[in-house]
Amino acid sequence: MSDQTRRATRTGGRAGRQAARLANHTEAVPFLTRSLSPLEVVSQEGIELIEHNADRILEEVGVVIRDYPEAFDIFRSAGADIDGDRVRFPKGLCRSIVTATAPSAYTQHGRNEQRNVQIGGDATVFAPNYGSPFVHDLDNGRRYATIGDFQNFVKLAYMSPYLHHSGGTVCEPVDIPVNKRHLDMVYAHLRYSDKPFMGSVTAGSRAADSFEMARIAFGGDLNDRTVMTSLINASSPLVWDGSMLAAAEVYARNNQASIITPFILAGAMAPTTVAGVAAQTLAEALAGMTFTQLIRPGAPVVFGSFASSMSMQTGAPTFGTPEPALVLYVCAQLARRLGVPFRSGGSLTASKIPDAQAAYESANTLQPTLLGGVNFVLHAAGWLEGGLSIGYEKFILDEDQLGMMTTFVNGVDLSPNGQAIDAIIDNPPGNHFLGTAHTLENFESAFYRSTTSDNASYEQWLEDGSLSAADRANKIWKQRLHDYEAPGIDSAIDEELQEFVARRKAEMPDEIG
Amino acid sequence: MSDQTRRATRTGGRAGRQAARLANHTEAVPFLTRSLSPLEVVSQEGIELIEHNADRILEEVGVVIRDYPEAFDIFRSAGADIDGDRVRFPKGLCRSIVTATAPSAYTQHGRNEQRNVQIGGDATVFAPNYGSPFVHDLDNGRRYATIGDFQNFVKLAYMSPYLHHSGGTVCEPVDIPVNKRHLDMVYAHLRYSDKPFMGSVTAGSRAADSFEMARIAFGGDLNDRTVMTSLINASSPLVWDGSMLAAAEVYARNNQASIITPFILAGAMAPTTVAGVAAQTLAEALAGMTFTQLIRPGAPVVFGSFASSMSMQTGAPTFGTPEPALVLYVCAQLARRLGVPFRSGGSLTASKIPDAQAAYESANTLQPTLLGGVNFVLHAAGWLEGGLSIGYEKFILDEDQLGMMTTFVNGVDLSPNGQAIDAIIDNPPGNHFLGTAHTLENFESAFYRSTTSDNASYEQWLEDGSLSAADRANKIWKQRLHDYEAPGIDSAIDEELQEFVARRKAEMPDEIG
Repeated sequence: MSDQTRRATRTGGRAGRQAARLANHTEAVPFLTRSLSPLEVVSQEGIELIEHNADRILEEVGVVIRDYPEAFDIFRSAGADIDGDRVRFPKGLCRSIVTATAPSAYTQHGRNEQRNVQIGGDATVFAPNYGSPFVHDLDNGRRYATIGDFQNFVKLAYMSPYLHHSGGTVCEPVDIPVNKRHLDMVYAHLRYSDKPFMGSVTAGSRAADSFEMARIAFGGDLNDRTVMTSLINASSPLVWDGSMLAAAEVYARNNQASIITPFILAGAMAPTTVAGVAAQTLAEALAGMTFTQLIRPGAPVVFGSFASSMSMQTGAPTFGTPEPALVLYVCAQLARRLGVPFRSGGSLTASKIPDAQAAYESANTLQPTLLGGVNFVLHAAGWLEGGLSIGYEKFILDEDQLGMMTTFVNGVDLSPNGQAIDAIIDNPPGNHFLGTAHTLENFESAFYRSTTSDNASYEQWLEDGSLSAADRANKIWKQRLHDYEAPGIDSAIDEELQEFVARRKAEMPDEIG
Repeated sequence: MSDQTRRATRTGGRAGRQAARLANHTEAVPFLTRSLSPLEVVSQEGIELIEHNADRILEEVGVVIRDYPEAFDIFRSAGADIDGDRVRFPKGLCRSIVTATAPSAYTQHGRNEQRNVQIGGDATVFAPNYGSPFVHDLDNGRRYATIGDFQNFVKLAYMSPYLHHSGGTVCEPVDIPVNKRHLDMVYAHLRYSDKPFMGSVTAGSRAADSFEMARIAFGGDLNDRTVMTSLINASSPLVWDGSMLAAAEVYARNNQASIITPFILAGAMAPTTVAGVAAQTLAEALAGMTFTQLIRPGAPVVFGSFASSMSMQTGAPTFGTPEPALVLYVCAQLARRLGVPFRSGGSLTASKIPDAQAAYESANTLQPTLLGGVNFVLHAAGWLEGGLSIGYEKFILDEDQLGMMTTFVNGVDLSPNGQAIDAIIDNPPGNHFLGTAHTLENFESAFYRSTTSDNASYEQWLEDGSLSAADRANKIWKQRLHDYEAPGIDSAIDEELQEFVARRKAEMPDEIG
């Protein structure tokens, strides 16, 4: 049996199982399309006040650019004032540059075109956890992440009907030298998934490697296609580091997308107040988004916001609290007024384990994420311990919640079948609807079916072993990894990718992070 | 030391501890006042369609009245058509009766006037779990509830800064005969708390006993004051039982409030669809609310909705799913258009234990509860196992979430301090805000402080015993019961209440439920 034939056979088996899975989850879609208007928590007057404050910050304080002298000329020629490492922007300059050319929405292509996602507008895209050095599961507790864990989470996200995106650094494979990890990570996304993914951002050269691997996998120069959306973080308050700008420059120059994200622990990297965090976030994001548009007008760029509150006892970040939810709602409003896609939210928690704390905090983040109208949702599944850890069980539990959101965003069906008025009129008072024609016709698709909840009687639950939701999730991720089969990849492309990775690794001595 | 002195001393100690507690929870208020506009998921056109369908149901099917012949004359004289036990309402009749006289909001008085709550408008009132025959805690698992448990939960709600109401049947004290429980329950609310409470509804005579005890405790004939808000459930689909109507009549005649609640497991008591459940809920609630207004025009009445989805495998109710959330949002819209207070939501779950399932499902219910603008929230704390059980740890975990909502509803502070623009302008890029004057001034009140979350480092969490959120809640409820001291009550009133309870018990043989 040739490789080609084996792959065809595997693909058939996968397709069959996938069809079965989709039958259970009829809502599975390449991305969500929200039918509800976003919730707005600040009046237009209030939003204008925050925008005015962001303008003042950009004009009076500006941003510091560290270790990237190339940026000064770029900003100066656009009309900014340069003073040492400080870049100040006349009122309205950043906004006019961003609104002139940044797209309000764009398509990120997956290796499988069926997985293409829209980022922006009324679309919402779920991507997994990002950046954790540790992993957690019920069997082994918490430990450093490896490339094996990384591959596992790529596989789990690939098989998830509710994750639309493969993400980026789903965990840090700390068993690989820090300067070579990006090669193995990008390869894993391309080899073990066919969903859209994120490139490396920790250095310009790593972004260039990511782009080269994408070019090999997708073919062509990619000027016509965005195939990566990558995460560019500010060093708040009001600093942009050269490594991040260098990566953003590589991506923008090649028509690839950047998520420009101020990462703010309120009280430390910004004032404690919601309106203060929002104004500073807007100012920092505007400076970063402006940079991408100056590199290549029209390059896709996403306004990002990551904000957490803080424990007054320890200074530790806290999640699922009301203040970051309000920041999210406000920043989503700001992004809509700017006309660019918005990234925020996820399933965030400070808990170390997949317990009630983890679930309350994650739900308190995910609800605003959907209701606020976030377009790109990093950390949608798996996040634990303030992002220091990704949990296998947490991933499965969160994914179930993403499924619920998949149903929720469809809103209320007001078709004749949705109204069900004849069914009600025809049913005598006091009689159950269980056997009525309308119920029988709608039963299969009527309600979201949770994969992790136990709704059985107490007695049945006892008989089933008195399992917690985390116990049930433990079985699910193991079964899913057991069932995993890789999507096909052209063997010539796979060979070229492997050769590229091997060559680049050979060119660099190991750096231990 | 006399009783009076001892009480004064206790009161001083309590006041001191309460002050300390309030310092930790500066947001504690007698009820929430929402500053955000409610989220609406259906257009005005869609809402009118659902209202039209409810009108058709009332006109073409009507409702059945069981075992309460008194109701037929009342409805007939208002213009309804009576046909056997069926009551049909001409289009618009119920709506015109309810909108003519039912108040849009009312004050329910607590025994302590500082605890008075507003029910309706932009107010939200949290009340504990209702109706569970079982209790659950980590030490003893699940067991039948007793009057001791009942008293414990009254005490826990009394001491909670975030529960505004003492509730009603917080659990079923199954160690007391079924026909005498209401006396011990009402006494517990009056003796162990001074927050507003709910009366008995399982028979007209029990409602009358509840009212008589309230009259003793509050003094006067109560025609000028509403001191009870009680739960009147429909027997969906489209049936009203005599026992519930008899209780509603007692309360309405005495100017006390009823919550008229269709209790719908979608697919069984109504069609499976959101718009169908909403139309039927509106029809059933309109019939019940109309009844109260015909008994006493202007009697306070609340539009209630309780709707759950269903497991397709077992027929069991499921919670925290998207469909009941949508029903809640729609029914809240319907209630606002009707101009009456709305009851729904809570912290609902099918989980048997306070695990991640319990938390996700509860949060998925509580978020719509707040964002939809629910006025009276039964089951806001403690609910487990589809309401069959109330959990001690779940109560504490839920209460913490109610605290978060207490902060959230205040929305975004756009005062100069909230904007913090000077703090941002004055802070050099790259410098932390931790030591700035603005941060120091705002730090104490900046963020909601969770009572049950662990935000410490992994190492610290290990050192603290690797506790789950439920483990931490276990310590909190025990400490709170240990710290409990009863609010004062006039000893003559207490004596009269006890005599009433003793006399009524002596008048009836025990009935075992």
